[in-house]
Amino acid sequence: MPSSPIRKLVPFAEHAKKNGAKVIHLNIGQPDIKTPKVALDAVKNNTLEILEYSRTEGSDAYREKLAKYYAKNDILVDAQDIIITTGGSEALAFAMGTIADMGDEIIIPEPFYANYNGFAIAAGVRVVPVESRIEDNFALPPIEEFEKLITPSTRAILICNPGNPTGYLYSQEEIKKLAVIAKKHDLFLIADEVYREFTYEGKEHYSILQEPGLENHAIMVDSVSKRYSMCGARIGCLVTKNKEVIATSMKFAQARLSPPTYAQIASEAALETPQSYFDEVKEEYVSRRDFLVAELSKIEGVKVAKPQGAFYCIAELPVNDTDDFSQWLLEDYRLNGETVMLAPAAGFYSTPGLGKNQVRLAYVLEKESLKRAVAILKEALKSYIG
Amino acid sequence: MPSSPIRKLVPFAEHAKKNGAKVIHLNIGQPDIKTPKVALDAVKNNTLEILEYSRTEGSDAYREKLAKYYAKNDILVDAQDIIITTGGSEALAFAMGTIADMGDEIIIPEPFYANYNGFAIAAGVRVVPVESRIEDNFALPPIEEFEKLITPSTRAILICNPGNPTGYLYSQEEIKKLAVIAKKHDLFLIADEVYREFTYEGKEHYSILQEPGLENHAIMVDSVSKRYSMCGARIGCLVTKNKEVIATSMKFAQARLSPPTYAQIASEAALETPQSYFDEVKEEYVSRRDFLVAELSKIEGVKVAKPQGAFYCIAELPVNDTDDFSQWLLEDYRLNGETVMLAPAAGFYSTPGLGKNQVRLAYVLEKESLKRAVAILKEALKSYIG
Ligand SMILES: Cc1ncc(COP(=O)(O)O)c(C=O)c1O
Ligand SMILES: Cc1ncc(COP(=O)(O)O)c(C=O)c1O
Repeated sequence: MPSSPIRKLVPFAEHAKKNGAKVIHLNIGQPDIKTPKVALDAVKNNTLEILEYSRTEGSDAYREKLAKYYAKNDILVDAQDIIITTGGSEALAFAMGTIADMGDEIIIPEPFYANYNGFAIAAGVRVVPVESRIEDNFALPPIEEFEKLITPSTRAILICNPGNPTGYLYSQEEIKKLAVIAKKHDLFLIADEVYREFTYEGKEHYSILQEPGLENHAIMVDSVSKRYSMCGARIGCLVTKNKEVIATSMKFAQARLSPPTYAQIASEAALETPQSYFDEVKEEYVSRRDFLVAELSKIEGVKVAKPQGAFYCIAELPVNDTDDFSQWLLEDYRLNGETVMLAPAAGFYSTPGLGKNQVRLAYVLEKESLKRAVAILKEALKSYIG
Repeated sequence: MPSSPIRKLVPFAEHAKKNGAKVIHLNIGQPDIKTPKVALDAVKNNTLEILEYSRTEGSDAYREKLAKYYAKNDILVDAQDIIITTGGSEALAFAMGTIADMGDEIIIPEPFYANYNGFAIAAGVRVVPVESRIEDNFALPPIEEFEKLITPSTRAILICNPGNPTGYLYSQEEIKKLAVIAKKHDLFLIADEVYREFTYEGKEHYSILQEPGLENHAIMVDSVSKRYSMCGARIGCLVTKNKEVIATSMKFAQARLSPPTYAQIASEAALETPQSYFDEVKEEYVSRRDFLVAELSKIEGVKVAKPQGAFYCIAELPVNDTDDFSQWLLEDYRLNGETVMLAPAAGFYSTPGLGKNQVRLAYVLEKESLKRAVAILKEALKSYIG
């Protein structure tokens, strides 16, 4: 398995810190938002005396409540359409393992969440990228571009909605277009919807599970990690109306016995999180996003795709190679003793050479840090180019 | 992936319960022993406000304390030789994914823990069984039997010590023999030591990591599940001095981000469990084992391999097919409204036809239940044969 460009930067960041620099991490997806108290309290107040395995597919109580959460989001599924997994990560691994054999292909719009590569390699699946562009704000590539890539080995199209790293939110029309080709070519449509709750400007998320007639093709991956800022729980799920997919995924699930028990207690309780929590969190992200996008756009030569969801954005910088630039930031640049760690976007592209002048920025830090980060970036670009 | 014979029995057990029967589960490995209070309390008293991802390899604090636990067990490793995993299950998956490519082979003494099949299939690895026999109490098969099976595709030998389902504890001499062929043929020796703490009659567990000169070949899989009766935590680890194995396993680990955070808090605290806890637990298991083995041996036609470790034993029954017999027990047999669920041993063998007259019994239930279970089995065998 290849190492991602972000991983390669880690030693440089560690070295910088050792030498006394402060590093502002724009590269990570670990929110600084507090976990809902109702979830934390449920674990503190648990009365278990034996920390037993849960059911392989997750506790019945949790799955039933989760089905109700989905119903409130216009996604009509039953508890038996849900397998609780160890993070959305495991749901992705199960999905790939379930639908594909060694050598099969999955089409994924790039740039995409880099760990898709890891799960694909582990499952022996070949990732076939289709390019989405910063010029189009990373909208769905034209359907003809997908069709050109479909071969007898193609098993699925995988999308991330809203997108990491793009922040792009697919419209209902885009999902409908994907549904048409999934049905036409008998492919699975896998949607990673772990950022469902993070949509901005009144835009509504449209899940692949809301699309009528797609029941047998749609596999949805979800997670509590970002929704409730509880990444450390390690709870996600795979949701599908396709009984065969459930049956095969259950075999993978049975081999690893069960998802974590404490984390299911927290996740079940998290479903009681008041709407006010989400309203506040959303407001916070919107204000961070607005600030970041506005400030970045003011820097000469910087182009930003305005995200409508999740908490990432991609920016094009006036440099040839953001790998080198990011490393230089960590090794050689300081503004008042501080520097910034970026995520070079090449790691999110599968096609070699793409994204070399782009970076991903996560706006999971408070505005004060974002402010300093942008200032550093602006000055650093001046010195780097000059 | 094939379904195990135990899984096939589950609907029959559910049906029996629906119809009012009590089912005593001799088939499962979920102990009824309480989790150490120190572990449960650590989670109850945690003060986290953001349930964050831990490090991919597990928290430094936990790994460092774990290294000390191993040192006390004469296993000399550092924190950086340890990757914390989501159960021993994930450590097994990482180990197979790391050492083998598609089509490679791993030799495993059968009968073995049935989920090894699942991890092997997921990693594209072929399991090559070498038979151990109830007549020998499931001791290590002769080394020549292993050597006969080694091909250019062989990457590793995998043992479970003490064994599930056999209860067999390998002697130091047996480990040394395996070390010799691992080195001679440049193979990995993977040892699943999740039952390390459960050894009886004063016998000591000898870890592959204690074997001098095996550093580059030895990969140990461990878990808190059974040791502290905290199966639901989902914490295990992969331990090896081989830096390349650590580096490759870390890539699998990075894709899934991190092991569960609450469970690491519990596992770190569990290391403070007083010795008295283990002494009591061991005493309890020994008395259950002694009872079970003695009572089973009294039944005509039943042969038992006396386990020296873990909490399982394999018994040969005077029937042709324990799949059929186990199903019949659930469907048709009741003694005072009760019956027994067994684990047909065929599911633990890879070679078709082996183990057809054997079952695995777990002695994780209190003696009162074991007593009734044996009585049921005795009477049931009479009716079944008669
Ligand atoms: C797009 C996307 N999918 C899935 C995941 C996996 O998250 P988890 O395993 O914590 O649910 C992440 C985490 O960053 C992500 O960004
Ligand atoms: C031999 C053996 N190895 C590994 C495991 C995996 O356990 P866990 O994933 O709970 O650590 C088990 C569980 O029963 C087992 O019996």
